[in-house]
Amino acid sequence: MRLRIDLSYDGSEFHGWATQPGLRTVQSTLEVALSTVLRLPSASVVCAGRTDTGVHARGQVVHVDVPDDPAHAGAYDDRLLRRLNGVLPPDVRVTATDPAPDGFDARFSAIWRRYAYRIADGPALADPLTRAHVLWWPRPLDVEAMGSAAEPLRGLRDFAAFCKRREGATTIRTLQELRWARDAEGLVVATVQADAFCHHMVRSLVGCLLAVGEGRRPGTWPAEILAAAARDPAVPVAPAHGLTLEAVGYPDDADLADRAERSRAKREAT
Amino acid sequence: MRLRIDLSYDGSEFHGWATQPGLRTVQSTLEVALSTVLRLPSASVVCAGRTDTGVHARGQVVHVDVPDDPAHAGAYDDRLLRRLNGVLPPDVRVTATDPAPDGFDARFSAIWRRYAYRIADGPALADPLTRAHVLWWPRPLDVEAMGSAAEPLRGLRDFAAFCKRREGATTIRTLQELRWARDAEGLVVATVQADAFCHHMVRSLVGCLLAVGEGRRPGTWPAEILAAAARDPAVPVAPAHGLTLEAVGYPDDADLADRAERSRAKREAT
Repeated sequence: MRLRIDLSYDGSEFHGWATQPGLRTVQSTLEVALSTVLRLPSASVVCAGRTDTGVHARGQVVHVDVPDDPAHAGAYDDRLLRRLNGVLPPDVRVTATDPAPDGFDARFSAIWRRYAYRIADGPALADPLTRAHVLWWPRPLDVEAMGSAAEPLRGLRDFAAFCKRREGATTIRTLQELRWARDAEGLVVATVQADAFCHHMVRSLVGCLLAVGEGRRPGTWPAEILAAAARDPAVPVAPAHGLTLEAVGYPDDADLADRAERSRAKREAT
Repeated sequence: MRLRIDLSYDGSEFHGWATQPGLRTVQSTLEVALSTVLRLPSASVVCAGRTDTGVHARGQVVHVDVPDDPAHAGAYDDRLLRRLNGVLPPDVRVTATDPAPDGFDARFSAIWRRYAYRIADGPALADPLTRAHVLWWPRPLDVEAMGSAAEPLRGLRDFAAFCKRREGATTIRTLQELRWARDAEGLVVATVQADAFCHHMVRSLVGCLLAVGEGRRPGTWPAEILAAAARDPAVPVAPAHGLTLEAVGYPDDADLADRAERSRAKREAT
């Protein structure tokens, strides 16, 4: 059977999501916890968004396939969440465990990923209690200018200019949302949502718009960079620690089951 | 001349506010930063609320007396804040520096201190990104029951039952506010305000009300404890890391000057 697991983590002390030999990563930490709690020789999870070193998550979603035999029956109920949190370190918390709906795949079923990038643009806003996930910026930012400059980047575009080049990977994405606002505490927050992101895309978009926000570049610059469709070394990649994966969107259960049915039919037809 | 300095800190890595030989404290860290930046042999600060080991602050206020001679003129302007933050470690941030109004004393002029105690009462609320300043509580809390139980504790009372005994120190305080609410994220937050607090008072009040909130004690228990007017070992002291000094209140400048004038007149009359 397949389980869906929702989790949050402080990325500060992790070398990103994906397992790497000899390094502390979120994936390997979660897999060890799952195999310990479920008494399996190993467990293999698939996530919605592979976060980089230092990037955080409040709404990461994974799936894991677990044996459906009677020896493990009862291991997947409400107590699983408590058991997992009992063995996980405090910088990772499981917030929900559920049987995955039919056809659910944490990575391929996801229809959107939403990130937030948080910035304290002045010394009075720099809060030591949130310093692990908020970028401290010494000068005030023009939030309106950043919002206007972001507008032409939205929609179905080739984001090659904002992506770390990877052989064979597409850079065409639908940027559904790219919004700047001040929150109740006065922090500058970017909300960035797309069907999917290529590598370094959110941090490059943020880096580019920061240059506009502090007046170092004109408001037309981000659109020009996009149009060039090639990685420009003048676009800074914003630091990882300001970035948090906030939520992942999936179709509702009926849609998921439909999709699963259709792809089964397709496979059988070929 | 006297300066007023507002600051925030993450108390996790400090042995509290007050200087102690060989230990890392907020006071000594700030005093070293001040003497470095102002090129003084030493600097001595007085704060509004001496926080315990592990307790945080977002609105701590201190004063410091600095030489008023021409050699230091210009050292106390807007650049002082930036200079201080330049030498302070990232777990302490100065948020404002101002010339203190006439008659201002960070400790003795303060008319109230306000603390917040934050609790995540369930695994879905436990956020790794805020774990340094939010207490994780495994079971759901009855916020209404905690609010009702808190009511009879407000006002001018002898808080001996909630204070760590100290020779010669009064335990009579005016508890101006003791309120429980859920914030926008679903955290349980106590707001506790008094003219002043005795040692361990906020954490003992919170610990006592937590026992009511999880149904381990009846709603009448805190009032009974208060009435006994003696330290009761059954009252748990809530962990330090959930507690943050949020703000300190002072009279307005005209009132401060009035008070200073009156006490000067009194001194001259005797």
